[in-house]
Amino acid sequence: MERLLIKEISNHEGEKITIKGRIFNIRNLGSISFLIIRDYSGVVQVVASKDAEVNSGDIVLVEGIVKKDERAKGGYEMKAEKIEIITKSKETLPFDLEKDDINLNLNTLLDYRVLSLRHPKVQSIFRLYDLLLKSYDEAMREEGFVEIKTPKILGSASEGGANFFQVDYFDKKAVLAQSPQFYKQIMVGVFDRVFEIGPVFRAEPHFTTRHVNEYISLDAEMGYIDNFYDVAKTLNRVIKKMFSQMGIEDVPEEIPYVKLSEIRKIIKEKYNYDIPEETDIDPRGEELAGQYAKEEFNSDFIFLTHYPIDYRPFYTMSDGKEAMGFDLLYKGLEIATGGQRINEYDELVESMKRKNIEASGMEFYINAFKYAIPPHGGWGMGSERIIKQILGLDNIKEAVLFPRDVKRITP
Amino acid sequence: MERLLIKEISNHEGEKITIKGRIFNIRNLGSISFLIIRDYSGVVQVVASKDAEVNSGDIVLVEGIVKKDERAKGGYEMKAEKIEIITKSKETLPFDLEKDDINLNLNTLLDYRVLSLRHPKVQSIFRLYDLLLKSYDEAMREEGFVEIKTPKILGSASEGGANFFQVDYFDKKAVLAQSPQFYKQIMVGVFDRVFEIGPVFRAEPHFTTRHVNEYISLDAEMGYIDNFYDVAKTLNRVIKKMFSQMGIEDVPEEIPYVKLSEIRKIIKEKYNYDIPEETDIDPRGEELAGQYAKEEFNSDFIFLTHYPIDYRPFYTMSDGKEAMGFDLLYKGLEIATGGQRINEYDELVESMKRKNIEASGMEFYINAFKYAIPPHGGWGMGSERIIKQILGLDNIKEAVLFPRDVKRITP
Repeated sequence: MERLLIKEISNHEGEKITIKGRIFNIRNLGSISFLIIRDYSGVVQVVASKDAEVNSGDIVLVEGIVKKDERAKGGYEMKAEKIEIITKSKETLPFDLEKDDINLNLNTLLDYRVLSLRHPKVQSIFRLYDLLLKSYDEAMREEGFVEIKTPKILGSASEGGANFFQVDYFDKKAVLAQSPQFYKQIMVGVFDRVFEIGPVFRAEPHFTTRHVNEYISLDAEMGYIDNFYDVAKTLNRVIKKMFSQMGIEDVPEEIPYVKLSEIRKIIKEKYNYDIPEETDIDPRGEELAGQYAKEEFNSDFIFLTHYPIDYRPFYTMSDGKEAMGFDLLYKGLEIATGGQRINEYDELVESMKRKNIEASGMEFYINAFKYAIPPHGGWGMGSERIIKQILGLDNIKEAVLFPRDVKRITP
Repeated sequence: MERLLIKEISNHEGEKITIKGRIFNIRNLGSISFLIIRDYSGVVQVVASKDAEVNSGDIVLVEGIVKKDERAKGGYEMKAEKIEIITKSKETLPFDLEKDDINLNLNTLLDYRVLSLRHPKVQSIFRLYDLLLKSYDEAMREEGFVEIKTPKILGSASEGGANFFQVDYFDKKAVLAQSPQFYKQIMVGVFDRVFEIGPVFRAEPHFTTRHVNEYISLDAEMGYIDNFYDVAKTLNRVIKKMFSQMGIEDVPEEIPYVKLSEIRKIIKEKYNYDIPEETDIDPRGEELAGQYAKEEFNSDFIFLTHYPIDYRPFYTMSDGKEAMGFDLLYKGLEIATGGQRINEYDELVESMKRKNIEASGMEFYINAFKYAIPPHGGWGMGSERIIKQILGLDNIKEAVLFPRDVKRITP
């Protein structure tokens, strides 16, 4: 008999059907057993005779009759006529997956990722992530962007600094891409508007609730802009569409803009907090900026603009002091960084000089600007941070299937 | 005035409009100049006075009136009233981008990628690639697969052998993922059906027309299969949908299956070619298998099945001699490899022993099978190879924006 998905059961009352799934729990009551069985579509209670030789964790096929039962989850249960073990679990689970909550500390949750991912609550994180990927893809295409895939093994680091991983590439030394920055900018000269969904690698030694060393960046770059607000407005529309697909309708038509220098003052005046002098903004400052956005504009989002150029990479357009760009905060956490880029060759060379950046290995990028690339800008957005914030997760690692941090390259 | 895309021009006959784009060619005729201007949507001829101080390669804004003109490409031209240079090209292009064909040798094409990508013929390769990504995403979702993103920095190599790149990961040595194999199999225990679009890295020293060292793999893994034909049939449906989206309608409902041992005989008998003994099948053999599929079944596709298990990775399900899997050939080139995987812990350990694979670094993967993962299989498909074959490109590197090979990590 053909396998029926558990979510379809309610359409088959009184019929004999076959399901396949994993046993999550067994309760014995006199001569009968209640088996909780899940497949990826849902959960059902199966009533079986007690002599069924099955255990929690086993993968089974169940043939039986669908009965209405108000007391059962989903309103239906199955009376088993045949139970076949498809794949036997060799070991007892080290923790209980059937409780509504999965109360494990983060290390256990990640060390036993293979199992913890099977918990419905953990699964739901990655169902939302699936939807996020789909919604970004669709929103970007609607906005006329062409999808590209650019190399992750590079001849030189794209974001400057020392935060890159080195790769042994045959007889050469290469680095892992910290971003698709160079390539997406070059592609503006080809397709005007491009986007990419792909991994980026940051050798940052931070061990925080907001950082992982490998993440999926949602990138975009667009040509023929007048200024960075064109970029911010496009991102605003894209986010609105994405969040709507994820069931969140309160993204403003116009996310408010506040200059960084202003938000520093506001945070001091309103919340009596001093953002440290030696930084542009710190995590506590971002939280308070988020609180201000909520209180002042009833918005979960806020664009902080005009960062001091010293904190921005060499390709950033500026007026000499402030960057022509933004960070987008969602519920008090930066989820995207964007802005206008330098698109004149001479300016770019000048900016590299000011920042002491060596051209070595990135000549192809610098030279591209000799052949005219229109005024442009774009953004990089952390996909996992969006999920963290939507679901209110304590740590971004919960939003990554198999996260990588300073100490963790396995599972 | 708002920028109009060139493809929209035909709807604005007699109107004054503004376009923005790049000058690809200038012809002077008496007191007037004909400028060929492209944006990402199309191309138009602009008639300007000869004193317009513009050059090929410049990015310009043109304000002018749309005129019908049978002789012009697209049937319309623009009479310029104002031309503004947005971004000036500082150097003359090293080759002509306005000819219909771009006749550069491969090295020049790739060395000057930043410019060669601007040629409409090269652009069209990556427009098709964009469509391919979209169509895979959509087809997989229609088939009930959940999109996942798995790490590219791994603690140990997933495909065995020495063909992996090493990464300095803080104080550890890590490797770049040769495939998402371990992770997608584990995820079958979570979501039944998963797919991934992502880069894979192969340190193969080959320098052929079919290999690059970094490519985008279209992966899938599905649970509760009866045998590898369930996987092959799903891939067949997915390919049919993808190709239909790309305008190719002749993908068979049932791509023919031929065993590898049979195709060797057929190729010997029909084409008098001996596939070398020390290989499963060689490139010439694949070509002839493709020719046979066309002649015998009128199909561009053929599944070659039952490869000797010696040529397959340790996780491959087999009958002890032959692998329960397939290669899918399209026009005589392997574009996908797939099959059923071992899903019983004891069998997996046994297979590793036979192949002398060390468990070190992949314990999390092996141990996952102690906790029951249903019978499953999947495929990995080379996205760039599909494009190469559809367009009949001589070299796969033409189907990669910025390809990586043994000698090339730049641009």
